[in-house]
Amino acid sequence: MALADRWLLPDGIMELLPPQARQVELMRRKVLDLYHRWGYELVMPPIAEHLESLLTGVGHDLDLNTFKVTDQVSGHTLGVRADMTPQVARIDAHRLRTEGPSRLCYCGSVLHTHPANMLASRNPLQLGAELYGHAGSDSDVEVISMMLETLREVGLEATISLDLGHVGIFSRLMELCQLTAEQQADYQDMLQRKALPEVDRFVAGIDSGSEQTREWLRELPRLNGSEAVLERAGQLFGHDAALAEAIRYLGDLAARVQARYPEVEAYFDLSELRGYHYHTGVVFAAYTPEYGQALAKGGRYDNIGEDFGRARPATGFSADLKTLLDLAGCLELPSESVIFAPAGDAEGLQAAIAALRSAGERVVQQLDGETISNGQTGRHLVAEAGAWVVKDL
Amino acid sequence: MALADRWLLPDGIMELLPPQARQVELMRRKVLDLYHRWGYELVMPPIAEHLESLLTGVGHDLDLNTFKVTDQVSGHTLGVRADMTPQVARIDAHRLRTEGPSRLCYCGSVLHTHPANMLASRNPLQLGAELYGHAGSDSDVEVISMMLETLREVGLEATISLDLGHVGIFSRLMELCQLTAEQQADYQDMLQRKALPEVDRFVAGIDSGSEQTREWLRELPRLNGSEAVLERAGQLFGHDAALAEAIRYLGDLAARVQARYPEVEAYFDLSELRGYHYHTGVVFAAYTPEYGQALAKGGRYDNIGEDFGRARPATGFSADLKTLLDLAGCLELPSESVIFAPAGDAEGLQAAIAALRSAGERVVQQLDGETISNGQTGRHLVAEAGAWVVKDL
Repeated sequence: MALADRWLLPDGIMELLPPQARQVELMRRKVLDLYHRWGYELVMPPIAEHLESLLTGVGHDLDLNTFKVTDQVSGHTLGVRADMTPQVARIDAHRLRTEGPSRLCYCGSVLHTHPANMLASRNPLQLGAELYGHAGSDSDVEVISMMLETLREVGLEATISLDLGHVGIFSRLMELCQLTAEQQADYQDMLQRKALPEVDRFVAGIDSGSEQTREWLRELPRLNGSEAVLERAGQLFGHDAALAEAIRYLGDLAARVQARYPEVEAYFDLSELRGYHYHTGVVFAAYTPEYGQALAKGGRYDNIGEDFGRARPATGFSADLKTLLDLAGCLELPSESVIFAPAGDAEGLQAAIAALRSAGERVVQQLDGETISNGQTGRHLVAEAGAWVVKDL
Repeated sequence: MALADRWLLPDGIMELLPPQARQVELMRRKVLDLYHRWGYELVMPPIAEHLESLLTGVGHDLDLNTFKVTDQVSGHTLGVRADMTPQVARIDAHRLRTEGPSRLCYCGSVLHTHPANMLASRNPLQLGAELYGHAGSDSDVEVISMMLETLREVGLEATISLDLGHVGIFSRLMELCQLTAEQQADYQDMLQRKALPEVDRFVAGIDSGSEQTREWLRELPRLNGSEAVLERAGQLFGHDAALAEAIRYLGDLAARVQARYPEVEAYFDLSELRGYHYHTGVVFAAYTPEYGQALAKGGRYDNIGEDFGRARPATGFSADLKTLLDLAGCLELPSESVIFAPAGDAEGLQAAIAALRSAGERVVQQLDGETISNGQTGRHLVAEAGAWVVKDL
């Protein structure tokens, strides 16, 4: 690597410099304090651990997205975490073992082998909250509310639309339509890409199933939009009890969230399958018109703890704090005027500086030979009549 | 890996659960705010970057201690950072390019292939401050002061002793004694282990150099203790201008620090070479009797930026925030009484909860079926005469 390249960061790896780093730090505090006020406990899982722990109960995508290293101490393979949710599930299942619901939150760096999308960094600062041990809609409403409150806290509440889906609908339809594994994988891929003409050609080529199941497969990727989508879905496959229940659940959830957050627009997408395939029920995401990807997303992933020996209902969401900062423009830093103190240890100088700092002032003590550069503004600490006083520059 | 082992963390890898995680979070804030008041700017370098960048200007130890992965995007080797100081040096040299001194601070997870010592974790939460662009003792005094203030901030100021050394003394003696490379490596190894009888046997076996240089080699590992050590060193090799200057510098530095922090005991160790071999001048560390390793340490490492194309004087220190928390016993969390609110969306309930949270209260809204367990204490939000009021449990 040439000298000139040594300071370059790898593609997609980002870092935060002043003043953005301080903005992110203050945003982190605001959001973690918000979660604290909602009764969530902070956890700090490690940046690397056994690969099996990181990938337990999650899909192949997360495996591909995880950097692996060999642990020289044990010979085991470790993964650098690409997602903190499985770590938090492990903590709930084994470290805490709470009987009732447990509410956990976290904020930390994760690392991806590939960026999640063209706009994403490979080292997001993942921030999120997870709620274990409760299966009803109360817990989904709570985590969606917290996701929306997070966006409000960082100043992004203005134009949020909430995408809602339910992976139980897709799974149940797959049961009913009896596609081969290969057909199902192809169909799922078309859904993710919302490739409608391809779906139509694919369905026309299927010789199994009834005309009704073929209609379902054609219609599913078209079931997105406002509340009318749920009605249409009810007409199409509401006679199946499991599907009817999923549709009802989505409608109820949207109504409860909108009663709390009337400014938020709800958008249904019944073919949305989201991320890493560990979701089992409702999935949700927050969007804003200025950004082509989800600002924050999550969903229900019951029983992820099963592979750790303790199955529990689970729901939660996460976001990249750096993306939130970018979109929030920038969080306004409290305006501060620096006090420049002279170099050295003249009598009373260190005590005067310490007193100012204790009072919350920002004091830069000049170093021998250091000068205040042109661009800098602030105040001066100067000796006057035997006392140290602060003066304008 | 067996089911029961999946939730185990690798040896030496630690994580923080409630309430310790919140304690570390609050400690992080206190310390970063302290650095902010001293005029230091926060930076957040990535957890992984090009290996060459992470290892530029540093020694072999850091290389061995760094986990490596191949970047699928570029084919280059990346390192998971084992030390944030070289990252901050890169930022000073290339991202910021400030003309005058630049003051930077950071706090983030690092990962080590091996624990630094028997008590250390392999994933410390590294916290530190670095000062670039100033070569005089003012900057060393400033960073040592900040290191001591850090320990005071977390409640560890009581019994701190400050170890001071100067790697310039070792380097100059090596020039004067003209050992072979192999002899020098052996000698350095004995110094690190303070193996005095071995040193004596080694020196007796050397046939190069004068009786004087052999005396220096014998005496160097014995030059540790209170200020008398500097006198003895002056007698031994004070006629060499470079050595005299290093001895004078150490004495001056100790006097300046003790004028500011009279409670801190200074201890000199002229054979202390410290860590990763990137230091070039004074090295320092803070100890407390309760812990066999340094609580915080640092030193001068001028010109580390040279390999990034920009040589600058540099000095700084770092510590593991988790170690500080362990030793501080635990930071007292502000005592908080949780308010439990009933489940659901009864009229006015959400507004009452939101108002309490805005006022800084911690409110847990019960989920359908959730009960307050026996151990929990706090208050209740209850409806009374058409209004929501907070009552004792």
